[in-house]
Amino acid sequence: MELYNYFRSSASFRVRIALAIKGLAYDYLPVHLLKNEQLAPAYADMNPARLVPLLKDGDQVLTQSLAIIEYLEETHPRPPLLPGDAAARARIRALALDIACEIHPLNNLRVLRYLVHDMGLADEQKNRWYQHWAESGLEVVERQLAGHPATGRFCHGDTPTLADVVLVPQIFNAQRMNCRLDHVPTVMRVFDECMKLDAFAGTQPSACPDAS
Amino acid sequence: MELYNYFRSSASFRVRIALAIKGLAYDYLPVHLLKNEQLAPAYADMNPARLVPLLKDGDQVLTQSLAIIEYLEETHPRPPLLPGDAAARARIRALALDIACEIHPLNNLRVLRYLVHDMGLADEQKNRWYQHWAESGLEVVERQLAGHPATGRFCHGDTPTLADVVLVPQIFNAQRMNCRLDHVPTVMRVFDECMKLDAFAGTQPSACPDAS
Repeated sequence: MELYNYFRSSASFRVRIALAIKGLAYDYLPVHLLKNEQLAPAYADMNPARLVPLLKDGDQVLTQSLAIIEYLEETHPRPPLLPGDAAARARIRALALDIACEIHPLNNLRVLRYLVHDMGLADEQKNRWYQHWAESGLEVVERQLAGHPATGRFCHGDTPTLADVVLVPQIFNAQRMNCRLDHVPTVMRVFDECMKLDAFAGTQPSACPDAS
Repeated sequence: MELYNYFRSSASFRVRIALAIKGLAYDYLPVHLLKNEQLAPAYADMNPARLVPLLKDGDQVLTQSLAIIEYLEETHPRPPLLPGDAAARARIRALALDIACEIHPLNNLRVLRYLVHDMGLADEQKNRWYQHWAESGLEVVERQLAGHPATGRFCHGDTPTLADVVLVPQIFNAQRMNCRLDHVPTVMRVFDECMKLDAFAGTQPSACPDAS
């Protein structure tokens, strides 16, 4: 498999973690977002959305990190990232979507660029925007985790699931943007547990070949 | 089952379509977003994200529209919203996420409110923001659909899938906000096909009990 990705992209980081948990080898192909390599014709032809990550598995060209991870789950079920019955899987997916649909889309690079370059916002307003969605969105995740009987060592139970795969890159982003995190103690406890595992620590941005 | 939802919420509309395709009966429980009923304690206790939709299935409380639809797909597999092999399912999910993660989160009510009330944007700037993400995001969907061998009468093949379930509510939003749509002819052809079906036409906002 070949993974087109960028060390600091949190959607890329999700897929790196999932591949690592499932023990799958891949070629790491960097696409430098700040240099706009995602807009180059060779890449844009493969991915009209001009976003990373993109996974090639033989002839298959796969986009959208959550769709890629569901594909990996179906083609390489062990160890499972969506364990349990339909209700358990729904809780895990909802936690992942609380981040992937409610926080991350508001804070990704092209949106921040649009706020500054097209809407004329100052950097300080842009940072406030970022922190607002990250801090309020993670507070929602905290309320779903704290005290819920299914929360364990990780977001759901005692093995890492899709929810953790999506949570950890979001915390990296929040820390880089100096977001408040002292209001989400359960989230941070789970984050610390994840970072004890090679699948998370070994795929973090600073460990990537294109890290700068 | 009980569906807490709002006639004009496109995430709610997705779940209504999915329930209708699968032929599942439910009680329609309106949560009026403009009246902030989603912030009322009784609702917020069930759903810390204070978003619609929410589906109750017996004791299960399910949130996040895509997680709800995956749950319905697992518990009521026929007719399938994710037909085919893993690669086909990945394409369908990626199309759905191209809308659910790249367009809709930027344009939902709480984000538009934040732009106006917290960042001080004029209504006209807010509308430009809306149109930018809807028009450019649907152009991405168009490029994924047009000329792709798996595109059929619907986004993927000749039966409606998760991709159509997510696409149709987004088109309703785009039309309501006067977005350009003449640049996405394949998208609009699929939309017209969907609207010939009761599962889509019968669950559209104007057909809901809380429509106003």
